[in-house]
Amino acid sequence: MKKSLIELERGLYKPKLPEALRFGVELQKREVVNVADEIKGIFPCTSGMPVVRFLRGEERKYEPVNVGVILSGGQAPGGHNVIAGLFDGLNHFNSRCRLYGFIGGPSGLIDHKYVEISFDLVDECRNTGGFDMIGSGRTKLETEEQFEKGREICEQLGIKALVIIGGDDSNTNACILAEYYEKKGYGIQVIGCPKTIDGDLKNEYIETSFGFDTACKVYSELIGNVQRDAISAKKYWHFVRLMGRSASHITLECALQTQPNVAIISEEVKEKNMSLSDIVDIIVDSVVKRSNGGQNFGTVIVPEGLIEFVPEMNRLIKELNDALASDDEYNQLKTDDDKRYYVMQALSPESREFYVTLPNRIAKQLALDRDPHGNVQVSKIETEELLIDLCTQRLKRLKDEGTFKGSFSALSHFFGYEGRCSYPTNFDSNYCYTLGFTAAALIVEKMTGYMVSIKHLTAPCDQWIAGGVPFTAMMTLEKRKGVMKPVIKKTLVDLSDEPFSFLEAHRGEWADETNTYLYPGPIQYYGPTELCDAATITLQLEHPYHHS
Amino acid sequence: MKKSLIELERGLYKPKLPEALRFGVELQKREVVNVADEIKGIFPCTSGMPVVRFLRGEERKYEPVNVGVILSGGQAPGGHNVIAGLFDGLNHFNSRCRLYGFIGGPSGLIDHKYVEISFDLVDECRNTGGFDMIGSGRTKLETEEQFEKGREICEQLGIKALVIIGGDDSNTNACILAEYYEKKGYGIQVIGCPKTIDGDLKNEYIETSFGFDTACKVYSELIGNVQRDAISAKKYWHFVRLMGRSASHITLECALQTQPNVAIISEEVKEKNMSLSDIVDIIVDSVVKRSNGGQNFGTVIVPEGLIEFVPEMNRLIKELNDALASDDEYNQLKTDDDKRYYVMQALSPESREFYVTLPNRIAKQLALDRDPHGNVQVSKIETEELLIDLCTQRLKRLKDEGTFKGSFSALSHFFGYEGRCSYPTNFDSNYCYTLGFTAAALIVEKMTGYMVSIKHLTAPCDQWIAGGVPFTAMMTLEKRKGVMKPVIKKTLVDLSDEPFSFLEAHRGEWADETNTYLYPGPIQYYGPTELCDAATITLQLEHPYHHS
Repeated sequence: MKKSLIELERGLYKPKLPEALRFGVELQKREVVNVADEIKGIFPCTSGMPVVRFLRGEERKYEPVNVGVILSGGQAPGGHNVIAGLFDGLNHFNSRCRLYGFIGGPSGLIDHKYVEISFDLVDECRNTGGFDMIGSGRTKLETEEQFEKGREICEQLGIKALVIIGGDDSNTNACILAEYYEKKGYGIQVIGCPKTIDGDLKNEYIETSFGFDTACKVYSELIGNVQRDAISAKKYWHFVRLMGRSASHITLECALQTQPNVAIISEEVKEKNMSLSDIVDIIVDSVVKRSNGGQNFGTVIVPEGLIEFVPEMNRLIKELNDALASDDEYNQLKTDDDKRYYVMQALSPESREFYVTLPNRIAKQLALDRDPHGNVQVSKIETEELLIDLCTQRLKRLKDEGTFKGSFSALSHFFGYEGRCSYPTNFDSNYCYTLGFTAAALIVEKMTGYMVSIKHLTAPCDQWIAGGVPFTAMMTLEKRKGVMKPVIKKTLVDLSDEPFSFLEAHRGEWADETNTYLYPGPIQYYGPTELCDAATITLQLEHPYHHS
Repeated sequence: MKKSLIELERGLYKPKLPEALRFGVELQKREVVNVADEIKGIFPCTSGMPVVRFLRGEERKYEPVNVGVILSGGQAPGGHNVIAGLFDGLNHFNSRCRLYGFIGGPSGLIDHKYVEISFDLVDECRNTGGFDMIGSGRTKLETEEQFEKGREICEQLGIKALVIIGGDDSNTNACILAEYYEKKGYGIQVIGCPKTIDGDLKNEYIETSFGFDTACKVYSELIGNVQRDAISAKKYWHFVRLMGRSASHITLECALQTQPNVAIISEEVKEKNMSLSDIVDIIVDSVVKRSNGGQNFGTVIVPEGLIEFVPEMNRLIKELNDALASDDEYNQLKTDDDKRYYVMQALSPESREFYVTLPNRIAKQLALDRDPHGNVQVSKIETEELLIDLCTQRLKRLKDEGTFKGSFSALSHFFGYEGRCSYPTNFDSNYCYTLGFTAAALIVEKMTGYMVSIKHLTAPCDQWIAGGVPFTAMMTLEKRKGVMKPVIKKTLVDLSDEPFSFLEAHRGEWADETNTYLYPGPIQYYGPTELCDAATITLQLEHPYHHS
């Protein structure tokens, strides 16, 4: 197969490892984390275990072990390197280890679809983006029946450990699986790796999920390019919606990297109970200020989850979902107009009043574009178009009143799929490789029910601290569909943390007529270290590296 | 002002120059190009001049000269480097030269808005993207009144030469301006530089316009990322529309760089008189083939100008423009429905029949979104959405007939503004700097009515051949609004040239179920030369470099 030049070059890159992993390792047990009794009750076998880390130790002999690996959920740059690190790590500990990849995500485990991962296959994919090496999928591993199907294939292949690479949900399920196999005494270990571009799988033990670094840098390149276009052409406001689901970490990081005129953070909208009109206020305020300074252009970035955090929209969506999800009468309506009329009747007076103020296109999306369960497809709502429309209306009014004298012309963008499968940054290449290698170390040390945890990520790689944290140490109980369930919590943007505080301290200056844009440019792999290896600003603010 | 790391690093990059320009230069006069008598008649003072090139010569003394520079039209990566090269070049020939930048494009010349370009200002902008150093604009320099306003400010500032950085139209006007100033004996030289990301300003003397290289590489990065996402998730067809106006050079180059499943080239559509239905055939054929091979995903790239080349759409747009452009009755209609009804009545039976088959959203765009002159805004038509809609309909029919058994789910993208202001590639950095430096050499050699021409662009920079070509040598007569006008011809994709032939030879393989995707990755500045400095594939195919 023909490869691009960069694919060939990246194939030669040797990811860096923490010093402790490069020779023999010694497992150090540290504190046992206190967890709620309910969690202990649900996970008797996998709670009460200590946090662990690896120190440099004597080279030792380990038993060979067969391992299975699964990519779960949406793509994130670096997935292939987790597998490469796992493969090389297993080989490092015992060259007779074997690695199997389950095809197409968790369903591969259930349906017994797998491939043995060879050195050539790994070599083909080192430092590349994508999950195409073995594929991923969104099947949830939840039922005992599925777990048993998994056990069957593990026994068949002699697999003694599974590595699940996924986000909060996949790791929650990995915990349940670990507990189940442990309770049953099947002797199959389960290890998780924190993956998601959204950046919402982080906590005291997990500094960041992999892929976040690369995705933010791809989006920031594009935002930087677009705002350099804005300041050059001097006639457009660019409204950019960014992937990231409910959390605004991506938008926040991109804002820190590019310094746009306006960045809306969903968590702040929720915290301050801001209405759509309040958000429009913020944008229009910047438009007017900049226009007074002669600058009829700018950039606005918003998270894709924003719409859910706006109270009136949230209520509207809930009502729509409740009223229409499995409403046969609705489903049998033929014309768009009939459907919209039906929708209107189903709403509360407040929601109806709000609904009629929405631009046509959005109103239609809400009423018509449903997922297979009949729910509104929130991620498909073009929030950036909605905001452009509302700002245009508002500015027209201000113009009529004589308080806005400039011009306002807006363009919209959605940056999402472009960032999920980029070649990983050096940071993600190294981080992912280390995650996989550490998973191998945890496996040969016979650990189960652990997520790999790499700390001190803003220090040079050789000083990173590799180890693991019991899934149960990160578990809380949350109401899901009316039932309390143990989950690894999604971490949203915390308004009291450094990254948001930084935004808060500077956004006034960014919103006005001075030009404070930053243009981060394309991801670099081969230049000066500061340029090529730096972690996200979020990580640098949350975990500053102190030169020792 | 705070700068991003890459901006600081790129500020240190020293663009390369052809060897002949690095010391003293000697102007070599070469062939006089034969031009039509009509052209000679219109441009008596600036035709009959020879093509020129610079050889290495003795260091000589030149008179100091004051120069004005203008950025004209849409942004293209590298504009700042043309100015930097011009500035350094003038300085190289005589350090008492002065350079003025006209603010906001050609209107700066007419309205006497300018800034003296200092070393610090140049230094601030070396190797950056954007046109924000002095701004650009779309005012056309066409009338004698404008030319006279330009003369006034030139006399005031002692400017003896103007450098106009623009596309085919701007350079056509530069030619008219050069002729006018020469005829009047004002002693103001005019030099042009070939700028446009669209790549359609090229001919026997101009191998490529600047910005094309960078823009194509930005878009190809994104297409590569998206198709790596497609092959990983295995569930979406991504439809990508690419900037580039009427010409398909960008789409063709991106296709060569990324090898998508389908790439539609407008010039082929026109040449073969293909209908919208024929285009849908091509895409659906690939969808079905790939689906039979189990691959329900893929990529389709289309040029933004496509829609104009489809005969039935072209006719429809013409009818809409003719019928509604300045139709007061239409303009007074209030509701969308009224307007659409009115539009329908205005069409010929064939066009009406075609119009009703169009998806709602597109039909609406055609009927409602008009530019200030009442014309359909072709560039805003979401061709990718139109194609998705038509393919969905077609595949549904095939499914009902039992000839399509797969699934088809599509996502759309438009890549445009992201590519116009990126940091220029090393190629564009070097090329633009050389363009500016050569313009300075042409100026001190007292040439006027020339476009800078750099040849052998696929050879290493030091072997590039720098020179100039008379505007008139590239002129032809074209009917514009019913009148024959001299113009520098836009060069569209030639189906008999190497780049298209390469596509033609390989696209069958790319369209089927084998995976032939290439992932070009982000633009690199600091790695191996092959990776960082290579020209576009188009240029390599058109002007292969033969090692001597």
